[in-house]
Amino acid sequence: MMKSMLIAVGGNSLIRAGEKGTVAEQWANARRTAAAIVQLIQAGYHVVVTHGNGPQVGAQLLRSERASDLVPGQTLDVCGAASQGEIGYLLSQSLSDELSAVRLSVPVVSLVSQTVVQADDPAMKHPTKPIGPFYSRAVAEERRRQLGWEIVEDAARGYRRVVPSPEPVEIVELEVIRSLMNEGVLVVACGGGGIPVVRCGDELKGIEAVIDKDRASALLASMLRVEIFAISTDIDFVYLDYKKPTERRLERVTASELEGYYRAGHFPAGNMGPKVESALRFVRSGGAEVVITSFEHLIDAVAGRMGTHIFPDSVPTCSEITTTEVPVGG
Amino acid sequence: MMKSMLIAVGGNSLIRAGEKGTVAEQWANARRTAAAIVQLIQAGYHVVVTHGNGPQVGAQLLRSERASDLVPGQTLDVCGAASQGEIGYLLSQSLSDELSAVRLSVPVVSLVSQTVVQADDPAMKHPTKPIGPFYSRAVAEERRRQLGWEIVEDAARGYRRVVPSPEPVEIVELEVIRSLMNEGVLVVACGGGGIPVVRCGDELKGIEAVIDKDRASALLASMLRVEIFAISTDIDFVYLDYKKPTERRLERVTASELEGYYRAGHFPAGNMGPKVESALRFVRSGGAEVVITSFEHLIDAVAGRMGTHIFPDSVPTCSEITTTEVPVGG
Repeated sequence: MMKSMLIAVGGNSLIRAGEKGTVAEQWANARRTAAAIVQLIQAGYHVVVTHGNGPQVGAQLLRSERASDLVPGQTLDVCGAASQGEIGYLLSQSLSDELSAVRLSVPVVSLVSQTVVQADDPAMKHPTKPIGPFYSRAVAEERRRQLGWEIVEDAARGYRRVVPSPEPVEIVELEVIRSLMNEGVLVVACGGGGIPVVRCGDELKGIEAVIDKDRASALLASMLRVEIFAISTDIDFVYLDYKKPTERRLERVTASELEGYYRAGHFPAGNMGPKVESALRFVRSGGAEVVITSFEHLIDAVAGRMGTHIFPDSVPTCSEITTTEVPVGG
Repeated sequence: MMKSMLIAVGGNSLIRAGEKGTVAEQWANARRTAAAIVQLIQAGYHVVVTHGNGPQVGAQLLRSERASDLVPGQTLDVCGAASQGEIGYLLSQSLSDELSAVRLSVPVVSLVSQTVVQADDPAMKHPTKPIGPFYSRAVAEERRRQLGWEIVEDAARGYRRVVPSPEPVEIVELEVIRSLMNEGVLVVACGGGGIPVVRCGDELKGIEAVIDKDRASALLASMLRVEIFAISTDIDFVYLDYKKPTERRLERVTASELEGYYRAGHFPAGNMGPKVESALRFVRSGGAEVVITSFEHLIDAVAGRMGTHIFPDSVPTCSEITTTEVPVGG
């Protein structure tokens, strides 16, 4: 039986800690990531890939600003689209090369993809996600006045624009992704969580926001009804009391157990929080299993030897379901 | 009977003469282009869309250079990929909005696509295509020395890098495009002629070159076996003696007639030449008809009222084929 899996590739799969993100570095990392994904395909998994775009979209915003005296600047949604082209190219070429290396003939394609969010999402009024370059106070003030940007002060580094991070509610290209997947195509989609768009009547309209890529990936994984949702990140396990003396790794947990740890404050908002949240959403919407680990360990993780595995709360099997009849006269 | 058509959208479909190419201008133009394409879908055509990326990839190179002190520069293939993301987003969103406006339910998707060229293509040794920013002589010299760039002097405007424009020989995503097309999806692909790659053994490798988008589109149109290959450009007809007192429009021509005009020097190399060449290739590889016109007139062109129509040389019908028997004793 072939199992299906969505792999959400983390930022470190393309730019590792300490790297600048040169094209050469990104190619090398994309190849390593692709090799890990191809191992899963060899093991019989039917795979869909999503990915982050944080550093790439930040670099694009910076490029766009820097050259705005010579060529028109780009909006955040257009920068996101450009980053999907860039990363989609790196990943799809790397995947097809790694597939060739093991003599597997699987077509690969990267899609430009949009994710619908709601215009009345409460997050839209509370921008929280810092994006793009750091500015001096004067420039930041000017941007706020001229462009209406929300600005926050970043401890030592200056001022920065913040944008909303609303909830993904719909993957625009869902049916195309589903149909390609059914035909055995390896699809790369939802880059950076997808380009955020809202529905205005019958039309789509791009907005300047970012969508958490793990949340968008959980939504896509649920809609595609894949069995496993794998989140590749920079650590091998999810930890409780991370980086404290009492630190301990989670190997197998149920949704309720994980939710308890989440409520107890074990997972920081900017990092493991959204991953844990996305994992919970997936298993609670019918998914069989979530794996959180580093991309190097994906193959060991699906064999159960590595990574944190999250399962739905146990539901009674058919034979355990009993009915009680109220006795006559009771 | 539903006819299939590949529409190669010209540069002016996104940035018109005199425009700077702001995001707002590109949206407005993308909507107009999308409206013209949707008219064809309403008329019953089964459509695939390709597009140019000249100004967008040039802008991306410039942005990349301008910010290279802060974020790593990008190679030409990666800039091409980014431009596919950018334009793919503009076109697919515009197309889906225009489809909604006429109550047509057609899924739309833009693909990141690669086009194979041959490493030993003679063009690889003779770069001819100017690309990216203009440089002073000193900077141009430095680039030539440090990066091995080929540089040409551009009359009044300075020095510029030139890259090869090799022949497209294979569309990497062909089978995915075909399969999506067969499922009724409106596909946007081969942006900017596709990201140029060569085959090195079993691997693909991106190169710094550009592929003529009309040539790549002709190849894709032939491989998909569409009936009509439509090239949308900034003029309504192909002209003989263009802009001379003897100028006259071509309305219906056969491949041989058009080739005669081509050989007589009617079509300049940088402009109408590659379109005419691509048209000839398509009808000579089995295509039924090429239409060259502006995007506003596509719908009138398919009705035969506008544009230049190119047909294969007439082949004899079955009843016209006769055999002659040599008389006995002749």
